[in-house]
Amino acid sequence: MAVEQTPAVDLALFGALGDLALRKLYAALYHLDRGGLLASDTRILGLARQDIDAEAFRERVREALDKSVDAKEREDEKVDRFIDRLHYLKLDFASVEGYREIAQWQAGRRTPLTVYLSVPASLFGVICKNLEQGGCLDEESRVVVEKPIGYDLESSIEINDAIGSVFDERQIYRIDHYLGKETVQNLLALRFANPLFGNQWNQSQISHVEITVAETVGIEGRWGYFDQAGQLRDMVQNHLMQLLCMIAMEPPSNLDADSIRDEKVKVLKALRPIEGERLATDVVRGQYISGTSGGKPVPGYLEEEGANVDSRTETFVAFKTEVSNWRWAGVPFYLRTGKRMPEKLSQIVIHFRQQPHYIFDPDQRGLASNKLIIRLQPDEGINLQVLTKDSGLDKGMRLRPGPLHLDFHKAFPKARIPDAYERLILEVMKGRQYLFVRRDEVEYSWRWVDKLIAGWESRGLPPKRYPAGSWGPVSSIAMITRDGRSWFEEY
Amino acid sequence: MAVEQTPAVDLALFGALGDLALRKLYAALYHLDRGGLLASDTRILGLARQDIDAEAFRERVREALDKSVDAKEREDEKVDRFIDRLHYLKLDFASVEGYREIAQWQAGRRTPLTVYLSVPASLFGVICKNLEQGGCLDEESRVVVEKPIGYDLESSIEINDAIGSVFDERQIYRIDHYLGKETVQNLLALRFANPLFGNQWNQSQISHVEITVAETVGIEGRWGYFDQAGQLRDMVQNHLMQLLCMIAMEPPSNLDADSIRDEKVKVLKALRPIEGERLATDVVRGQYISGTSGGKPVPGYLEEEGANVDSRTETFVAFKTEVSNWRWAGVPFYLRTGKRMPEKLSQIVIHFRQQPHYIFDPDQRGLASNKLIIRLQPDEGINLQVLTKDSGLDKGMRLRPGPLHLDFHKAFPKARIPDAYERLILEVMKGRQYLFVRRDEVEYSWRWVDKLIAGWESRGLPPKRYPAGSWGPVSSIAMITRDGRSWFEEY
Repeated sequence: MAVEQTPAVDLALFGALGDLALRKLYAALYHLDRGGLLASDTRILGLARQDIDAEAFRERVREALDKSVDAKEREDEKVDRFIDRLHYLKLDFASVEGYREIAQWQAGRRTPLTVYLSVPASLFGVICKNLEQGGCLDEESRVVVEKPIGYDLESSIEINDAIGSVFDERQIYRIDHYLGKETVQNLLALRFANPLFGNQWNQSQISHVEITVAETVGIEGRWGYFDQAGQLRDMVQNHLMQLLCMIAMEPPSNLDADSIRDEKVKVLKALRPIEGERLATDVVRGQYISGTSGGKPVPGYLEEEGANVDSRTETFVAFKTEVSNWRWAGVPFYLRTGKRMPEKLSQIVIHFRQQPHYIFDPDQRGLASNKLIIRLQPDEGINLQVLTKDSGLDKGMRLRPGPLHLDFHKAFPKARIPDAYERLILEVMKGRQYLFVRRDEVEYSWRWVDKLIAGWESRGLPPKRYPAGSWGPVSSIAMITRDGRSWFEEY
Repeated sequence: MAVEQTPAVDLALFGALGDLALRKLYAALYHLDRGGLLASDTRILGLARQDIDAEAFRERVREALDKSVDAKEREDEKVDRFIDRLHYLKLDFASVEGYREIAQWQAGRRTPLTVYLSVPASLFGVICKNLEQGGCLDEESRVVVEKPIGYDLESSIEINDAIGSVFDERQIYRIDHYLGKETVQNLLALRFANPLFGNQWNQSQISHVEITVAETVGIEGRWGYFDQAGQLRDMVQNHLMQLLCMIAMEPPSNLDADSIRDEKVKVLKALRPIEGERLATDVVRGQYISGTSGGKPVPGYLEEEGANVDSRTETFVAFKTEVSNWRWAGVPFYLRTGKRMPEKLSQIVIHFRQQPHYIFDPDQRGLASNKLIIRLQPDEGINLQVLTKDSGLDKGMRLRPGPLHLDFHKAFPKARIPDAYERLILEVMKGRQYLFVRRDEVEYSWRWVDKLIAGWESRGLPPKRYPAGSWGPVSSIAMITRDGRSWFEEY
């Protein structure tokens, strides 16, 4: 199949020596280049405060690729070609002067500037202003921004206003890297290309939905930063909400960015808030205490380096909500995410309802429902739990849950599963916004999160403790058990 | 799990030195014994015309096991234990004298006699009469009969009357060995324990159904026998009709034999006959000519040993029918079966309807439907075709049919898949009739087949030719192509 190259782009990367750039972005760009997806005159301009020259910058990127790209995918010739695309400019982000040099770098070129802001959101405003005043932008320019977009609704409005005063919404690409994951995009195919699932994707056939995003890591040296946010803001407001939207949205009429995003916003607007009595029953906050991780003892959240021992910030949150619309009324969505869990696991489980009548071994009635398990990590794949007859003569007509399993790595052995950033950068270059978050999505999500946080503050209770290496506070188990269900833990 | 032994049985096997007994029945009984499923005082009495003694009989069975049981499953001690269960009686089937010896063999035992008639149907009547007159039977006796039950409706009535004059229907076990296959029983689990499939098992979600039973063999030295029957009588009237019933029947209220068989009969009664104009469009008869099989040249049907060169008997038949009821109206069932096909393959394909709206690559619209493939042989398993996003960056939102696959051998690696006869003999011993064919099933099936044969005779056309090693006459391809469909041939 012929490769469809992207149009030529001049990419200006702010935060060119930052952690994300060195760990992810150059690797993603290199993979696109290696795959023949970058136009020959696509160029990358690294921008940072450090006073180094282009050669030193290239050396830094080369070292970064050594770490972030598999040895068998690092072909000398292709790495050299990629490195040749790199330029560097020392920039004081706050002063318009340097921005004129960016404009000069582009002079005479017809390729639009694509600005990638891999810097704290507090800088978005001044950078955008200076880009405009420095004469770097036109109608075709694009800007890519990384999360977090604010700390609450109010701060997100400020940030979005600052970007929006310079760029139109059609020029803005807000990254939630979960949307770049193959399995998440596969949700679109699963739901909308498979009548078997699509026809049953509603309250009459689905009993409940689970989303788990479990991390094994703790705070990793960023205690101060994390403690300002907490797990709800850091993971739920963006990633888990996006997953929930992809599962719950109405089928869009087409794959255009706004058709999809209109539907996602409708989900966020219909999401039942957790308030009043529900604050006691439908949500559990947790904070890890010392325990084990990977078989080794690890300190508790309040014992981490730099910790404030009075912190009430949650490192775990589990909650139950509902999408109050015609499709989903009455179907609980159980979500949980936490640090220092027993395994790194992101998965969505769609539990289909039991049939009204049952004719097999009465002891096995509990088995008789179907589950669709969509695993984002580890090992992206889809697993459909169906019941088959247990084989073996002595068993009679006994049932057995058998997985119909599709592991992407095994199913498509020759295909590399691209990293989320490869997909997202590619879509930016192609000018397609459907995998990016629109302003109103960000804002409706904050609205829901802010209400929950306000509820917590009014109750004034500390988070529940859980040992590192466990699945969170026992009350998060009780929350789902009360409904006669359990978190799905086999795979 | 504790093994549930069968009650003690005295099994009288007529045709004890016949082909089926030597190839299949002793092996099945041995496997049951080895698995601990036979009561310690279960005995087997071989009955045949040959004048040999018990020792010679046991030797013959031992030789048969050497051929029909895997070496690693032939444990000396267990084979010896099994052989010890064997008795032999030289019997003139037509004379009541010998039957008294059977009664004597049983004298003083409380185990009911189970009679297995592995002999031509023409002998069923006389054997049943003599069993009765010889004093071998009581209320608890059972009789197992092998196909074919007659040649048409009339002859099947005669045979069933003859058995029925001695045995009640509740004592009669008519074997269709397809019902003993694990995958066929799995159809019950798939349909009735999986809401995902059960909910969509009707005309509003299924577009059409395919059943293929392809053999690679030709006539194998039984030209004269086969030529009297033809593929329709030999394969469709029993096996394919049973598969069709298992797919199409309404959900039974429970797994009782009559609950299931009542539903199967309703399917047969609702099966649209092929008559009138449909004889030209909805059915194709074929007869193989010389070609290849397994890479070697093979003769045509009319060139086989013993062939009558004027024969118009079909070795292939394909047809399209419909189950005219609320569940299935408008859903074509395409069936085909033939000898000298390119591969040995028995499979059922449920094609789900396409969704009304489609949002992916327009070139791929044809892909966008789901298929459930139930394979009986080779490699029993279930395969669900779902569409996923094609992985790889250059593909955009392209779809790819990905199999969700359950291969029973791989899914349950420790479990032996029992042969159909093991399951069926076990069910006879347990006195459960749900996997056996009731008289009215046989008769409604013959009614449908007889009407088709009468139609063929009235038209007087010879079968279409097809080369050995092909998928049948081209008109059998055209029959489905006219409907905008094709026989499913990947797996």
